[in-house]
Amino acid sequence: MNFTAKMIAEMLRGTVEGDPETSVTDVARIEEGKPGALSFLANPKYEKHVYTTGSSVIIVNQDFKAENPVSATLIRVSNAYEAFAELLNLYEKNKPKKSGISPMSAISKKATTGKDLYVGEFAVISDGAVIGNNVQIYPQVYIGENAEIGDHTILYPGVKIYHDCIIGANCIFHSGAVIGGDGFGFVPNDENVYSKVPQLGNVVIEDHVEIGANSTVDRATLGSTMIRQGVKLDNLIMVAHNVEIGKNTVMAAQVGIAGSTKIGADCLFGGQAGLAGHIKIADGVKIGAQAGISNSIKKEDVAVMGSPAFNLHAFYKSYAIFRKLPELWRQLQDLEREVAGKSGN
Amino acid sequence: MNFTAKMIAEMLRGTVEGDPETSVTDVARIEEGKPGALSFLANPKYEKHVYTTGSSVIIVNQDFKAENPVSATLIRVSNAYEAFAELLNLYEKNKPKKSGISPMSAISKKATTGKDLYVGEFAVISDGAVIGNNVQIYPQVYIGENAEIGDHTILYPGVKIYHDCIIGANCIFHSGAVIGGDGFGFVPNDENVYSKVPQLGNVVIEDHVEIGANSTVDRATLGSTMIRQGVKLDNLIMVAHNVEIGKNTVMAAQVGIAGSTKIGADCLFGGQAGLAGHIKIADGVKIGAQAGISNSIKKEDVAVMGSPAFNLHAFYKSYAIFRKLPELWRQLQDLEREVAGKSGN
Amino acid sequence: MNFTAKMIAEMLRGTVEGDPETSVTDVARIEEGKPGALSFLANPKYEKHVYTTGSSVIIVNQDFKAENPVSATLIRVSNAYEAFAELLNLYEKNKPKKSGISPMSAISKKATTGKDLYVGEFAVISDGAVIGNNVQIYPQVYIGENAEIGDHTILYPGVKIYHDCIIGANCIFHSGAVIGGDGFGFVPNDENVYSKVPQLGNVVIEDHVEIGANSTVDRATLGSTMIRQGVKLDNLIMVAHNVEIGKNTVMAAQVGIAGSTKIGADCLFGGQAGLAGHIKIADGVKIGAQAGISNSIKKEDVAVMGSPAFNLHAFYKSYAIFRKLPELWRQLQDLEREVAGKSGN
Repeated sequence: MNFTAKMIAEMLRGTVEGDPETSVTDVARIEEGKPGALSFLANPKYEKHVYTTGSSVIIVNQDFKAENPVSATLIRVSNAYEAFAELLNLYEKNKPKKSGISPMSAISKKATTGKDLYVGEFAVISDGAVIGNNVQIYPQVYIGENAEIGDHTILYPGVKIYHDCIIGANCIFHSGAVIGGDGFGFVPNDENVYSKVPQLGNVVIEDHVEIGANSTVDRATLGSTMIRQGVKLDNLIMVAHNVEIGKNTVMAAQVGIAGSTKIGADCLFGGQAGLAGHIKIADGVKIGAQAGISNSIKKEDVAVMGSPAFNLHAFYKSYAIFRKLPELWRQLQDLEREVAGKSGN
Repeated sequence: MNFTAKMIAEMLRGTVEGDPETSVTDVARIEEGKPGALSFLANPKYEKHVYTTGSSVIIVNQDFKAENPVSATLIRVSNAYEAFAELLNLYEKNKPKKSGISPMSAISKKATTGKDLYVGEFAVISDGAVIGNNVQIYPQVYIGENAEIGDHTILYPGVKIYHDCIIGANCIFHSGAVIGGDGFGFVPNDENVYSKVPQLGNVVIEDHVEIGANSTVDRATLGSTMIRQGVKLDNLIMVAHNVEIGKNTVMAAQVGIAGSTKIGADCLFGGQAGLAGHIKIADGVKIGAQAGISNSIKKEDVAVMGSPAFNLHAFYKSYAIFRKLPELWRQLQDLEREVAGKSGN
Repeated sequence: MNFTAKMIAEMLRGTVEGDPETSVTDVARIEEGKPGALSFLANPKYEKHVYTTGSSVIIVNQDFKAENPVSATLIRVSNAYEAFAELLNLYEKNKPKKSGISPMSAISKKATTGKDLYVGEFAVISDGAVIGNNVQIYPQVYIGENAEIGDHTILYPGVKIYHDCIIGANCIFHSGAVIGGDGFGFVPNDENVYSKVPQLGNVVIEDHVEIGANSTVDRATLGSTMIRQGVKLDNLIMVAHNVEIGKNTVMAAQVGIAGSTKIGADCLFGGQAGLAGHIKIADGVKIGAQAGISNSIKKEDVAVMGSPAFNLHAFYKSYAIFRKLPELWRQLQDLEREVAGKSGN
C-alpha cells in the first residue's frame, strides 16, 4: 500500500487539509502513530493523540475542530470510523484467499460440495452435508450429517456444526464456535433423577451472521433455534434451545440467553448480560452490560440496566443513592433521635 | 412415525379426549403447530396456543381445564412434559447409531478398547487409555494417556479429555468440553512473579453426567475434582480444581465455581451464578441467576439471590425498595426539613 | 517418591518437629490424608484437619501454633503453600516429557521448526510459522500462517492460534484457547445493517503467560492486542481486540474485557468481572468477583466491588444497608407518621 492523502480522500469522498501529496504506506492506531502511517480519529477520548501522533495522515469527522496545532495532514469525511473501515476492507480484499481441498481432510462421498472451496487439513464433512460455493472450511472443522453451509461462508479452525443445522451465506464463525449441541432439557422423576429430553430440532442461521470464538448455539427440542440475518455475536456467548434472535441484533461477549426466549431486531446487548427463558424482547431494546432480564420487555427501543433490570436512567438514579446508603441510614437514625428527643421520651 | 392418538395414549398411559383415530406423523412446538403434528402443553405461559394451534393432537396435564373450545384431540397424562420426553426418547432410540472405527483416527496400540465402538475421523486415543463398550467417540476428540471412558458414553466432536481423567458410563459431553485442564494454582514470589503449582490430580466424573458445549472442568492439584452421578451441566460452565458437585445437581449455562468448593446433591443453579472458592453448599440449595455466593450455605433447600447472595425473598424485598430509593431519599430530606422547621431552626 | 521428613526439610530449608525419619511415598490433601502421605496446611480454614488427618508428614507455616495434639510429623517453613508447590515442581519435572513428531500431523514445508519438538496427531502448522525449540504441540492444535511460538511453550490439544500472532517462551495454553480471532468491530449503515471492520492487527503474548481452557484473545484492528510477561488467565476469559494486560496480572475464570482497555501490572481480577472498553486500570488494582467496571481506575492498588463498581469497603457498607432496606423503609414511614401526628394533621 502506497497512497497519497489526495488519493485516499478521493476514495472516501473527503477533503484534504494540509499537504495532499503526503504519502502513507501503512495503517496504525492514532496513539501508536509513526511517519508514513494512516490513522483515524472517531472516539473523542482519543482526541489528545491527534496533536502528538507521529502518523502522517489522519482521517477525521467533518465537524472535528482542532484545539491545538496538528502537524499531520487531515482528511475530513462524514464518518471517520466508517470511512476507515471501508478503506481497510479495500485493503483486506486484495489479500490472497485460501483455496484448495486438503488430501488430509475427510469429505464424505455422500456430501454435496460447491465450487471454489477451501477445505483444510483434518476437516470433516459428513454424509448428506451440502456445502455452497466459495465456502472456506479451515482445518479441524466438523460439519455433521445433512448440515448445510451457504455460499462464501467462512468457518475458522475447529468450528463444530452438528447434524441437520442450516447456515446461511456470507457468515463468519470463529474457532471453537459450536452450533447445534443438544438443548438443556431434562425431566426429573420423583427421586430427582433426571431423564434427557431428546433434542430433535436444529439450528437455522441466516445470511451475514458473525459468531465469535467459543460461542455456543444449541439445537431446538423441536423446530429450530433461529438466528436472523445480520446478527453479530461476540465470543463466549450462550444461545439456548428454541431461542430466536431478530435481524441485525448485536451482542457483546459472554451474554447468555435461556431457552425459548424471542429477541427482536436491532437490539444491542452489553457484555455478560443474562436473559431468562420464555420471555420476549421487543425490537431495538438496549440491554446494559451484566444486566439480568427476568421479564419480557414489550416496549421498543428502551434501555435497561441492573439485575433484575429496569429502566437505565432509573437504575442509575437508584444506584447513586445506593452508594450513599450508609449516609442515608445515619441521617435517618439522627432524625429519629431528634424527633424522639422533642417528644421528651 | 405414524401413530393414532389412541396408540400414543396407550404408550403414555393417558386418556384420549376427542377422536382417538386422529393420526400424527410429526412433532411440533404448540405455537408452531400444523395438521398431522403432535404437540404438548406443560408451561401455562403457552396455554393460549392450545386454542389456536394447527396441531392435530396435544398432550396435556391431567388437570388441564380448557377455557375455550379446543379443536385438537387431547391426550391427558399425569405429567405432559415428562410424557412428551418419554415419547421423544422412543423416537430417538429408533434412529440408527453411529458405528465403526475410522481408519483416519489415531488409536494407540497401548490403549484398551471395548466392543461396538464408534471412533470418528481424526480422533486420538492415547497410550494406556481404557475405552468401554458402545462408546461413541466423534471426530477430533482427544483422549489423553490413561484416561478411562465408561460404557455407552458419547463424546461429541472436539471434546478434550486430559490424561488420567476417569469418565463414567452413559455420560454425554458436547463439543468443546475440556475435562482435566490444569487447575489455576500459582505462588507469587516477593516481586509478584508467579510460579505454577503443578496439578497432579485428575477429574472423576460418575455415570449419567451430561456436560454442555465448551464447559471446562479442571483437574485437582492433588486427589480428584469430583462430579457425582446424574449431574447435568449446561454450556460454558467453569468448574475449578478440587471442586466436588453432588448427585443430580443441575447448573444452567455460564455458571462458575472457584477452587475447592463442595456442592451438595440436588442443587439447582441459575445461569451466570458464581461461587467463591473453599466454601460448602448444602443439598437442595437453589441459587438464582447471576447470584454471587461468597460464603458457605449450610441449610438445605434454601433459595438465594443477589451478589453477594442472601435469602431469595429478602433479596426481592430489598430490591423493590432499591428501585424506589430516589423517592425514599426525597422523603427523608422533606421530613428532615419539616422537623428542622418545627424546631424553629 | 520415597523421602524422609528430614530429607524434605532439607530440600525446603525447613525444620522438623517430630520423628525426622518418618517416610512418605505419596502426596495428599490434608482432609484426605492417609499413612505414608505428605500434606500441607496453608489456608487457616483447613486447620482443623491437622489434628485428625491420616497423613504422616505435614508442611506448615513457621508461625503455626497447634491448639490440639498433632500426631503427624511437622515440617516448618516460611511459606507452606510455596514450599509445597516447589516440591510438586521437583516431582513434576521428573516425569517423562512428550516428544517426537507424529506422521499424522500436517507441518508446512514453509514453516520453520526448532529442535526437540513434540507435535501430536492432526496438528497443523501453516506456511511461514516459526516454532522455537522444545515446544510441545499436542494433537489437533492449529497454528496459522506466520504465527510464532517461543521456546518451551506448551499448546494443549485443540488450541487455535490464528495467523501472524506471536507467542512468547515458556507459555502454557490449555485446550480450546483461541488466540487471534477477529475483534468485534462493525459499522452500522442508516438501515442498521452492519459492515465488518477488518481486523488487520495481531495478538502478541510475552513469556511465561498461562491461558486457561476455552479462553479467547481477539486480534487487534490495527497493531497488537498485548498480553505482557507473567500474566495468568483462568478458563473461559474474554480479552477483546486492542486490549493490553500488564505484567503479572492474574484473572480468575469468566472475566470479560471489552475492546481497547489498558490494564496495569500486578492486578488481581475476581471471577466473572467485566470491564467496559476504552478505559484504563492502574497497576495493582484488585477487582472483586462479578464487579462491573465502567470507568477508568487511576489510583494504584485500590480494591473495587459492585456493578458499577466502586471502593470495596464502601460497597460492603452500602450493601449491608441494602439488606435491611425494608426495615429502613418501615422506619422512615413510621417516623413520617409520628412527625405528622405531632403536627396535629
